[in-house]
Amino acid sequence: MTGQERSEEKSECVSLSPMMEAVPAPPESERVCVFGTGDMGRSLGLRLLQAGYGVVFGSRRPHSSSSLIPHGAQVLGHAAASQSAHLIFIAVQREHYDFLVPLANQLKGKVLVDLSNNLRKNQYPEANAEYLQSLVPGAEVVKGFNTLSAWSLQNGPSDANRQVYICGESVEAKQAVIAVAIKLGFSALDQGFLSVARELEDFPLQLFPQWRLPLRIAIGLSAAFFFYLLIRDIIYAYVTQSKDISFRIMVSLANKVCPIVSLIMLSLCYLPGVLASFLQLYRGTKYRRFPDWLDRWMLCRKQLGLLALGFAFLHVLYTLIIPIRYYVRFKATERTVSVIRENRTTQFDTTTAWRGDSYLSLGILGFGLYVLLGITSLPSVINTLSWREFSFIQSKLGHLTLLLCTAHTYLYGWNRFLSSSTYKWYTPPGYMLCLVLPSVVLLLKLLHTHTQNNTLSVMTALSLRGWLPFNHRLPCFWDQKPTITFN
Amino acid sequence: MTGQERSEEKSECVSLSPMMEAVPAPPESERVCVFGTGDMGRSLGLRLLQAGYGVVFGSRRPHSSSSLIPHGAQVLGHAAASQSAHLIFIAVQREHYDFLVPLANQLKGKVLVDLSNNLRKNQYPEANAEYLQSLVPGAEVVKGFNTLSAWSLQNGPSDANRQVYICGESVEAKQAVIAVAIKLGFSALDQGFLSVARELEDFPLQLFPQWRLPLRIAIGLSAAFFFYLLIRDIIYAYVTQSKDISFRIMVSLANKVCPIVSLIMLSLCYLPGVLASFLQLYRGTKYRRFPDWLDRWMLCRKQLGLLALGFAFLHVLYTLIIPIRYYVRFKATERTVSVIRENRTTQFDTTTAWRGDSYLSLGILGFGLYVLLGITSLPSVINTLSWREFSFIQSKLGHLTLLLCTAHTYLYGWNRFLSSSTYKWYTPPGYMLCLVLPSVVLLLKLLHTHTQNNTLSVMTALSLRGWLPFNHRLPCFWDQKPTITFN
Amino acid sequence: MTGQERSEEKSECVSLSPMMEAVPAPPESERVCVFGTGDMGRSLGLRLLQAGYGVVFGSRRPHSSSSLIPHGAQVLGHAAASQSAHLIFIAVQREHYDFLVPLANQLKGKVLVDLSNNLRKNQYPEANAEYLQSLVPGAEVVKGFNTLSAWSLQNGPSDANRQVYICGESVEAKQAVIAVAIKLGFSALDQGFLSVARELEDFPLQLFPQWRLPLRIAIGLSAAFFFYLLIRDIIYAYVTQSKDISFRIMVSLANKVCPIVSLIMLSLCYLPGVLASFLQLYRGTKYRRFPDWLDRWMLCRKQLGLLALGFAFLHVLYTLIIPIRYYVRFKATERTVSVIRENRTTQFDTTTAWRGDSYLSLGILGFGLYVLLGITSLPSVINTLSWREFSFIQSKLGHLTLLLCTAHTYLYGWNRFLSSSTYKWYTPPGYMLCLVLPSVVLLLKLLHTHTQNNTLSVMTALSLRGWLPFNHRLPCFWDQKPTITFN
Repeated sequence: MTGQERSEEKSECVSLSPMMEAVPAPPESERVCVFGTGDMGRSLGLRLLQAGYGVVFGSRRPHSSSSLIPHGAQVLGHAAASQSAHLIFIAVQREHYDFLVPLANQLKGKVLVDLSNNLRKNQYPEANAEYLQSLVPGAEVVKGFNTLSAWSLQNGPSDANRQVYICGESVEAKQAVIAVAIKLGFSALDQGFLSVARELEDFPLQLFPQWRLPLRIAIGLSAAFFFYLLIRDIIYAYVTQSKDISFRIMVSLANKVCPIVSLIMLSLCYLPGVLASFLQLYRGTKYRRFPDWLDRWMLCRKQLGLLALGFAFLHVLYTLIIPIRYYVRFKATERTVSVIRENRTTQFDTTTAWRGDSYLSLGILGFGLYVLLGITSLPSVINTLSWREFSFIQSKLGHLTLLLCTAHTYLYGWNRFLSSSTYKWYTPPGYMLCLVLPSVVLLLKLLHTHTQNNTLSVMTALSLRGWLPFNHRLPCFWDQKPTITFN
Repeated sequence: MTGQERSEEKSECVSLSPMMEAVPAPPESERVCVFGTGDMGRSLGLRLLQAGYGVVFGSRRPHSSSSLIPHGAQVLGHAAASQSAHLIFIAVQREHYDFLVPLANQLKGKVLVDLSNNLRKNQYPEANAEYLQSLVPGAEVVKGFNTLSAWSLQNGPSDANRQVYICGESVEAKQAVIAVAIKLGFSALDQGFLSVARELEDFPLQLFPQWRLPLRIAIGLSAAFFFYLLIRDIIYAYVTQSKDISFRIMVSLANKVCPIVSLIMLSLCYLPGVLASFLQLYRGTKYRRFPDWLDRWMLCRKQLGLLALGFAFLHVLYTLIIPIRYYVRFKATERTVSVIRENRTTQFDTTTAWRGDSYLSLGILGFGLYVLLGITSLPSVINTLSWREFSFIQSKLGHLTLLLCTAHTYLYGWNRFLSSSTYKWYTPPGYMLCLVLPSVVLLLKLLHTHTQNNTLSVMTALSLRGWLPFNHRLPCFWDQKPTITFN
Repeated sequence: MTGQERSEEKSECVSLSPMMEAVPAPPESERVCVFGTGDMGRSLGLRLLQAGYGVVFGSRRPHSSSSLIPHGAQVLGHAAASQSAHLIFIAVQREHYDFLVPLANQLKGKVLVDLSNNLRKNQYPEANAEYLQSLVPGAEVVKGFNTLSAWSLQNGPSDANRQVYICGESVEAKQAVIAVAIKLGFSALDQGFLSVARELEDFPLQLFPQWRLPLRIAIGLSAAFFFYLLIRDIIYAYVTQSKDISFRIMVSLANKVCPIVSLIMLSLCYLPGVLASFLQLYRGTKYRRFPDWLDRWMLCRKQLGLLALGFAFLHVLYTLIIPIRYYVRFKATERTVSVIRENRTTQFDTTTAWRGDSYLSLGILGFGLYVLLGITSLPSVINTLSWREFSFIQSKLGHLTLLLCTAHTYLYGWNRFLSSSTYKWYTPPGYMLCLVLPSVVLLLKLLHTHTQNNTLSVMTALSLRGWLPFNHRLPCFWDQKPTITFN
């Protein structure tokens, strides 16, 4: 932010360039080489310069490139450049790697950092870094820095892109790369040998891998309930009363599908936690792994919850525009007119008022908590919470939200549960169907809390779960489980 | 995120394990020992391995544990393991510390890092770290890393959990631990001697310490106004007109309590800043400490403001559902019917339209700014603001929000302030009561801005306050004050 | 957060102070000196102590200052203090720099870090750091740390304020300062020679430099459309029908201006990306710089988008309160009454219902996506996204939002486009004017996607743009472009 302002005004910097080169060169250990003068190479070079390294660019056309590179850096031909440093960043696309073959001799013993990425998964038979190693067998190839963009290199590391993943065969080579990463402000994670390179190269190609299952569930549920309600509401009216109320698809139907999907997904978000607790109670230990399907389910609770919040948000908007709708305004006028013309008297019903207001109030409070859960799942907010606070919000407040939303739906149904006219074509309305799962989750949760309190003395380990950093096999309601497995 | 994907697909990693051990062991200074193979121990061990350390686990049953520990690490018995490194992380629960007593000799001169936490405050007479020191008097005990969860160790440091707090008697021991912390990507803060250990052990047990006072104020105000309005509205109607309008509790009453509490809390959020300014003017210096109650009040302004935003959000929802309510729809029909039956003509009143629309518009703009204040108080957004920008938003826009919301409430009252029918049982309505505080705050602020401008030449120090990093004794409207005191 | 709790309870710390001084002093290389015992000096000193440095304060009145400084630090006179360390932080305001002149001899060869800031831009003829250098010519002056507040020094580095910018003539001096910054948990960026100091000193005085252009556009558009609609709606009614409908300014007019400005600004946010793509297609290369006006435009897309979201939010609120308005309720009653009195029958029109509901539904979905775009532009959320994910959301979902909102506006117009009564005084209504730009952007985008697919084989470079870290000259729809230029 501030950097931009600076760069816009920086004019005296141009004159610094010649002076910079007059400065005595840093020792070889503090000098690195960058092959390639594209965006990535130049951004990396600038960052290296700013961290105090001497930087020598290697280029095919050193003379024409010299205008492109950041001030304070040198450009030489590849062969000459490679002699000036022990560590060489290869910021070149894989297709052009063959220029390295004639340099194989000069590169012997050097550490080559492969920064390249591909355009799609499985584009080449082997990882770029392995290919590079095969071209220059005498060098120590380290894969790394490829998950960073030129943008994040220029703007400096922040939160999630502070981590640099590296892999390679040589421990010494990796330690040299780690040292550079730390000096640039990154934190390096050694992922193992060069065979992991392919995985590292697939990272930047990911498109929401964790959101896929929750999105599929959301789309599946929406489609199922849409067609169910289409048949029950619109087609039923057309078949039995020959009325065309298809316009209801746009708002009324949408406003039925949204809350139904939202409530089901919210309970799906809390069901695996309850299941896991029971599994642990049944097994009598918290130290055995969960079955894979449960693990995968627990890993996507956050996404399930956020999608549920999205549907709840749409439900709120669809509800609030009700009085603006032409249909609703038309009906209101029609009702008043009919009261007058038929000379009826209307009677205020306190029970209906109580029920309606309670229904709305529960919905509002439930949505308020829903939004609170959403806000506390923002990465920067999570980070300010202690473990116990996070667990309190996501578990206690989460189940309270589920309770309020379920009660809101029960009040919506009210006495229609027993009326036979509700069951058109012998099918229950959507809100009844969607009440099954949350009711089960709340019941199980109640049961489990009860059971757990009784067995507390026997199974201390279990009761410790969830809120101590030190004991948290099952801590994360709604959030991600530890990501690394120990095979 | 990306790490999970990897772990799910990582199968070739299994084969790396034997090769890893073939790698020549790092020197002793680069080798650390971890006692305990639980979640915390394994997560820490993995992180250490990834940062390039050699890791030796100490375990009671080294053979059965070897399948649990991360690849590349060794497992030995406790005695053997302790010989391999100078630094030993004790990732074991306090109850099992007695296994260290027979090792006291081997541990002499070693640095023991106590990572343990307790289940509740004051669980034991002395801090775990002090207990550990008493068991192994010859070792240098350092308390630290206990505020991290295994989860944050595996996912890497981020924002708020980048800081590791340590304490201990030996400066050298602490420096060794700090060096490891930095290499793992954390930033270590030396908190002093081992007597601070108890405080560090209480950290993860905190449950919103800063939210308690604001929450109590919010609950107290809500309860007080709820009963006040219950008596004034519902009980009054029941006693004087024998009408049962109790159904209004759910929405009407809630929609009176919410805005009242919101406005009072918003002014409570800005009152201490104004008081502090006057105190400084009165004292003639900005270099004296504020009284304790004012300090504590200023420390919870952010929480006061966010709770006020929450109540405002509920008020908006409660207001927007008004036209959907049964009662409101019933009344509308009744009114229209009575117009017809009594053959009245209705007259459009432009003043009422102006007042009503202005009232709504001010409310909308006030709420918009309210939300903006909320968004800019998100940790990650604060971090992108310069000091002057933050101060501008929280002070200038904050007072503007208060002004808009206060004007919104005055317009709500309008001419009812003078009508005697407003004062049922001689009590003023709720919105009048809640106008007192914000009016006072706005007046004082106006007065202070005026005074300050006049005395600017005399008291330069004061006028500098608030927007320069270098001069900010009183900088933080709405946000936290510096947290460490210099006694 | 946790730190505060601690400091409030820390009482035993007082007793630590004398013991701390008994500890053997660290070697000179690990000792630093701080001149000045104000907020900044003390915060910096405390942080240095916590990171393991020995700290010696220099003060005019060492005896009276000793009660102010953090425990574990020493206070000496300036001359004595300067002898104890190689690195001296000058945490003093520029006006008091003259006390350094008599120390010039002692300071010869020392590294002086200038932390000062000014009250306004161009307050002094030369930068504070350059002035300092002129006073103490024998010392190595490094400008730095001035962008940090005492607050961020005490609370530790986080996200955006992790970076410390430094500049100075001597490479060795800068490396010494960088080393300290890294140990304190910051990441240092060398910005060049001391001539850059002025820019660094202007940083903390910035007030939303990036928001200025977007805010001016927003205010300009709002004012223009406000007056246009004022004339067309209110003055037109007054002139032609002598009706005073001025009360409409507060809600009706505001609710026309908000969506119009929102839609125009959303298209302004996507227009430069489309223009840039065409420019690259036309030029046949992605390696040439864009013209300056396009660069500046692309740099403020995020701000344009967020302001557009703000206007959309107000539009939603203004729309949702429609049924609560006095005018609307009055009209509804009047309509019903006239139906009765004139004994008309009302006919339900399915087309109107379809149109109205579709219009509302598109608006809701558009606003939902709008909010999603806003959430994903939060700094902490951006950081969790891979490059491809970010680009997917901001480009694909962004254009979808624009499409939905444009369709929403077309449906609002519906058949009024052709009715001559729409064109009062021969002017088109506001919503028609605002449809021009989004229609053009969507058309160009469609055209470009089509063209690009056809020329894919020829211009691989272009097709790679936007989602690979390695190839992203044109990556950032809606977000910031790389901030540093290579002249």
